[in-house]
Amino acid sequence: MTILGEQIIGHAVRKGTNGEIFGLDAATGEKLQPGFGGATLDDLEAACALADKAFDTYSETSLEARAVFLETIADNILAIGDELIERCMAESGLPRGRIEGERGRTMGQLKLFAGVLRDGGFLDARIDKALPDRKPLPRVDLRLRNVPVGPVAVFGASNFPLAFSVAGGDTASALAAGCPVIVKAHSAHPGTSELVGRAVQKAVKDCGLAEGVFSLLFDSGRDVGQGLVADRRIHAVGFTGSRGGGTALMKIAASRAEPIPVYAEMSSINPVLLFPAALAARGAAIGTAFVGSLTLGAGQFCTNPGLILAVDGEGLDAFVAAASTALANAAAAVMLTPGIHKSYCEGTARLAAHKSVKTVGQGLPAETLRGQAMLFSTTAEEFLAHPELQDEVFGSSSLVVRCPDEAALRRVVEALEGQLTIALHIDAGDHAAAAKLLPLLQRKAGRLLVNGFGTGVEVAHAMVHGGPFPATSDGRSTSVGSLAIARFLRPVCYQDLPAELLPDALKDENPLGLWRRHDGKLENA
Amino acid sequence: MTILGEQIIGHAVRKGTNGEIFGLDAATGEKLQPGFGGATLDDLEAACALADKAFDTYSETSLEARAVFLETIADNILAIGDELIERCMAESGLPRGRIEGERGRTMGQLKLFAGVLRDGGFLDARIDKALPDRKPLPRVDLRLRNVPVGPVAVFGASNFPLAFSVAGGDTASALAAGCPVIVKAHSAHPGTSELVGRAVQKAVKDCGLAEGVFSLLFDSGRDVGQGLVADRRIHAVGFTGSRGGGTALMKIAASRAEPIPVYAEMSSINPVLLFPAALAARGAAIGTAFVGSLTLGAGQFCTNPGLILAVDGEGLDAFVAAASTALANAAAAVMLTPGIHKSYCEGTARLAAHKSVKTVGQGLPAETLRGQAMLFSTTAEEFLAHPELQDEVFGSSSLVVRCPDEAALRRVVEALEGQLTIALHIDAGDHAAAAKLLPLLQRKAGRLLVNGFGTGVEVAHAMVHGGPFPATSDGRSTSVGSLAIARFLRPVCYQDLPAELLPDALKDENPLGLWRRHDGKLENA
Repeated sequence: MTILGEQIIGHAVRKGTNGEIFGLDAATGEKLQPGFGGATLDDLEAACALADKAFDTYSETSLEARAVFLETIADNILAIGDELIERCMAESGLPRGRIEGERGRTMGQLKLFAGVLRDGGFLDARIDKALPDRKPLPRVDLRLRNVPVGPVAVFGASNFPLAFSVAGGDTASALAAGCPVIVKAHSAHPGTSELVGRAVQKAVKDCGLAEGVFSLLFDSGRDVGQGLVADRRIHAVGFTGSRGGGTALMKIAASRAEPIPVYAEMSSINPVLLFPAALAARGAAIGTAFVGSLTLGAGQFCTNPGLILAVDGEGLDAFVAAASTALANAAAAVMLTPGIHKSYCEGTARLAAHKSVKTVGQGLPAETLRGQAMLFSTTAEEFLAHPELQDEVFGSSSLVVRCPDEAALRRVVEALEGQLTIALHIDAGDHAAAAKLLPLLQRKAGRLLVNGFGTGVEVAHAMVHGGPFPATSDGRSTSVGSLAIARFLRPVCYQDLPAELLPDALKDENPLGLWRRHDGKLENA
Repeated sequence: MTILGEQIIGHAVRKGTNGEIFGLDAATGEKLQPGFGGATLDDLEAACALADKAFDTYSETSLEARAVFLETIADNILAIGDELIERCMAESGLPRGRIEGERGRTMGQLKLFAGVLRDGGFLDARIDKALPDRKPLPRVDLRLRNVPVGPVAVFGASNFPLAFSVAGGDTASALAAGCPVIVKAHSAHPGTSELVGRAVQKAVKDCGLAEGVFSLLFDSGRDVGQGLVADRRIHAVGFTGSRGGGTALMKIAASRAEPIPVYAEMSSINPVLLFPAALAARGAAIGTAFVGSLTLGAGQFCTNPGLILAVDGEGLDAFVAAASTALANAAAAVMLTPGIHKSYCEGTARLAAHKSVKTVGQGLPAETLRGQAMLFSTTAEEFLAHPELQDEVFGSSSLVVRCPDEAALRRVVEALEGQLTIALHIDAGDHAAAAKLLPLLQRKAGRLLVNGFGTGVEVAHAMVHGGPFPATSDGRSTSVGSLAIARFLRPVCYQDLPAELLPDALKDENPLGLWRRHDGKLENA
């Protein structure tokens, strides 16, 4: 394949004429060729019209046909070969191992949803058969299944150019649900986006699906992305990015004539709670492990551990000392974009200069466009007095909050905003204290984890990558794992439909072999 | 019990001091004693503080304890006896049979959710066990369950003083989910609300639950209701009422520091599509049955058939003729409130005077505070040219849209806003045409039904009482039936938790005997 700077509108490719975007070599900031034409509002209109037209047929494709489609996308991505890996490395500054791993993860996500489709449980099929003899009134025949919500807009993320972008989790779950997808490519990796977009486009053709099932647009400003969210034919939005960007899309979606759901993953500092027994037994070891998580991928994970909470004492001293030592040898890593690098430098400078904050550790000095890892410290009292210390600094920066006692630690947790993850480091002697805190922690985060760090988000059935605002715009869902399909579904009830008009999922003879609820009770076949 | 005009704040009762509200005799408009004190902002604060405090313990009560609590509420409502029925009849103008039936429905809903709790499927328990030997990286242990979102605000509805009010569907599903509830009583039936509120309060005491699990406030204006939605301790809202009221609450919820979901059921005209073969075979019979649905409960149902669509011809003439004849004998019925009566009269007068609309049938003339049933007619062309003809007229008013052909009928359907229900009247000869239209209809409504009318909403597992905006604010859910519990849940993932810290739903030994997904596959015990 060759990168041509073209967007994808159904079966067609078309160079946008609304400005030009260039991918940048993350390590040098130099422009990568070719330029990518930004979409015009006509391009947006064409993509939305095609998606709307494709919906009625695509939403009723068989589960098996959709599963094969997702598997075909995965195969087509692999078939791009090393060109994808190299372009993605250049655009992101991430190393080969990470990008190859991310490609595997992206393919794994697509295949996971193929399995979800073949299982069919997401349809939540329910049958309450008619009771014509019921007194005082007969009961009608009621059957329920989930159907896709409609065409979905997906915004590519800067920090996962494959797994959270063109054919990433949002696209995979929306396509699995039966929703056509229009992707707004992230400007940080347009070449990667085009390559993956062509792989998806080819899969649409390979599988003989309606062309509007997938389009990919580049946006030289904000009009196309905002126009996408405002378009009446779009019925849900998937976004991963900044709090400012996410809340802007939420506002647009809420002010439409027909408001639609926005699933925006935004801002999380992923508190790590260190309990006394664990600190006493292995404070230093936890400190060293923490630095591994903090500096992974230049700290550019939504689940990066940006906040450490513990009761003051020798254990915490040991933790901080070990973390500082480990940090002192941490090389500064290339960041994703010059913009992200700039924000990181500003954020860490702000903390370094904050009157309530001490710098307690730092990584090796940074050359151009690289981020120096940083560790700061403050007290519970100061943290509570300065809400801005909760602001996410995207990158390998973290803040230790020293608490005088357990009660102060609890007050700090109570003051926290919503989070993707909260980690607890505990030994057996801490279980009672942890149990007391769990109900509160559960209010605050989508994932609670023990003796680890939130980085490393397994794509699985029991994963939740979500959480209360501002971690996400909608804490009732996840963007990673098989449950993500629920975001793009709505239930429909069919009352007294003749057998021949019923969808397969709800026919008496259960041709799909689904688990279904009969009068509320799960039954198979 | 005696009605004292008091609100309920946890275990306490307290007469509000912010203005006074009176129930009105619906048939005469006369004040019913006693007066009810409106809540102050202090009352609101007290109720929210108690609900917040109750959340951590109530959310972790056992499924069985919560089931018994719901059953106790049902028993306590029945124990109020005839005082409840009589007060409710006076405040609503609805006949005894309807109110007794609604009490049964309300108790049935509570018991349905007791069953949902004992089944436990709503927890969506998932377990992906650790794979320590997986290459290249081991897998952590991941377990997922749904947890309640937090305290919920419920707004009582005017048209179902029992089933959609203090202990109605929203309250039952929120309490089942594990959420404390604060009800804002509807001003149309304060006496009914107090009686039912005391029954719930007694159940909280009977079951030894935290007092903040339930409170009931009266609002002499809008400050308390709006303040409830704005309060940071409230995490979701259930509302049934007007489009104006619902969208106002949506705006408040979206502009909070932490936006929350609003489940508002608002406005639906419930189109009824009459197909040619059915019309030819039994146009007149459908017309007569239609009037039965139209005039039920003075037409004051969210699912009232407000729009009839059909291709012009003899069958449709027969339908209209039979409907007009049946209507001519329909007695005018007392409406719920003077305000609703006034709106109904204005709405029907507007239609009667509309230049594109003809009056084709009317019920018996109306005395004071009663609504005269009305049937209007227009053409597809005029309907498409006048979007205001889609506006809901709450009461027994309906509009027939005569379409020149199938294509015009489709264009009318395409122009429709979201609906709670769409009904199709079809014979075997219409199946092909109906099948062609189903994907479009499915985009527009939460329930599709054949050869019936949407009035009569069965409380069941496969029911969907919901639909795209403006039928509801959130088409991903239902307010009737067991699936309603999903509105008040969010998933949480537990990673590598020691066995003793895991909730029962996720322990290896499955003490609750739940169906759970292991690596995505449903298994029992």
